Amino acid sequence: MSGALYVIGLGPGPADWLTPEASEALERVTDVFGYGPYVERIAPRPDLTLHASDNRVELDRASAALALAASGRRVGVVSGGDPGVFAMAAAVMEALERGPDTWRGLDVAVLPGVSAMQAAAARLGAPLGGDFCVMSLSDNLKPWALIERRLIAACDGDFALALYNPASRARPQPIHDAFRILRERRPAETPAAFARAIGRADEAITLTTLAEADPGIADMSTLVLIGASTTRLIARPGQRPFVLTPRSYEAAP
Amino acid sequence: MSGALYVIGLGPGPADWLTPEASEALERVTDVFGYGPYVERIAPRPDLTLHASDNRVELDRASAALALAASGRRVGVVSGGDPGVFAMAAAVMEALERGPDTWRGLDVAVLPGVSAMQAAAARLGAPLGGDFCVMSLSDNLKPWALIERRLIAACDGDFALALYNPASRARPQPIHDAFRILRERRPAETPAAFARAIGRADEAITLTTLAEADPGIADMSTLVLIGASTTRLIARPGQRPFVLTPRSYEAAP
Repeated sequence: MSGALYVIGLGPGPADWLTPEASEALERVTDVFGYGPYVERIAPRPDLTLHASDNRVELDRASAALALAASGRRVGVVSGGDPGVFAMAAAVMEALERGPDTWRGLDVAVLPGVSAMQAAAARLGAPLGGDFCVMSLSDNLKPWALIERRLIAACDGDFALALYNPASRARPQPIHDAFRILRERRPAETPAAFARAIGRADEAITLTTLAEADPGIADMSTLVLIGASTTRLIARPGQRPFVLTPRSYEAAP
Repeated sequence: MSGALYVIGLGPGPADWLTPEASEALERVTDVFGYGPYVERIAPRPDLTLHASDNRVELDRASAALALAASGRRVGVVSGGDPGVFAMAAAVMEALERGPDTWRGLDVAVLPGVSAMQAAAARLGAPLGGDFCVMSLSDNLKPWALIERRLIAACDGDFALALYNPASRARPQPIHDAFRILRERRPAETPAAFARAIGRADEAITLTTLAEADPGIADMSTLVLIGASTTRLIARPGQRPFVLTPRSYEAAP
């Protein structure tokens, strides 16, 4: 079978966070599948067919992409950020698992990218400098009880937290419920950051504390970072403080 | 003050995982500081001074880099992978916190990169497709009791795990102790992957199970990935199976 499928991480937005590997793959493919706003980032070419689809149809999109690859095309499936972190790599693997046996013989490769948590962490300093947990707060595909259990476990382990999908227009509640759980278990002054659309024109960062935060400012373009017990601020003249989760655990300065 | 310091993520190794932002920063800086093997990746230029240093002197290296930036130079501090994940961003922030007040007025920026866990995950399929914990097993800077507490919490939360610094020549024990803890808490057949030097000439992946794994194969260039309860394999003819941690939690196919 001569077709191929690449799951391509576009990074958080700007071209200077797109890896050369991803750029080259985008030049080689004959078809690109993805959520509309990601497909819009791809430069059109006469020999490239763009297949934009809605959010929440990841499995259908992945199956359509695999079927086209099986017909001999070189297909790219694009994700914002890193495809392996709450993005299309898992959807493509799920479609591969459910699909016809012949799909498993296809050349399928995942091309990593810079994820939103890394872009947000870079802007803030080193908030994920120690051990951390990465969670999606969306309860579309898993029960809220599991999300709650994981937030509690993350607090038990004193992990810093990177929270994806904190809220959407259809589901504003998860980040409020998460803050309720975290506020019962972590000090009021724990640093909390809301990093929205990092690297894009409307980038915005709100750096606050667990107690003072308004979880309602989070939307589906926001990544929320919560500190561990060791996380602290470094004041800077005329600029937003840096956030540091030190490598060492005793570590008061 | 006109000096500047950039903490630059080089990615896991190959140039095609180096972001354009990082490439451009490397062309602009006058000095590069870093652990020897990372500095060796930088192409020499007549107007660029390379300052290679040993492992385990991160704080001294970061302070020297900040001092030079304060003297007006444009300094790069390089990290393999992403500087925000067990790398130089935290060391630079710690040095900034301890150093003279004037350093806080410097132009300091962190430039994110693809981390080892993302490269390893990409090669394997989607092992981090659900919620996951990211931990360093090095007890140089934190007590082993905390690492143990965090491994237990990660099991309580049924998180997939990405384990950095599983072992070194000086400390071969952490990954053995970690496996003992994990084997008491997770099923024998849980997928476990040892991903060594991903993207480099000596790349090697061992995909096995928690019960059958030999933790002794891990060294300081190895990233260890451990599945959650939902993690499973997708067989492929003539190739290593893909590893999938599905987005959904009930999710038997």
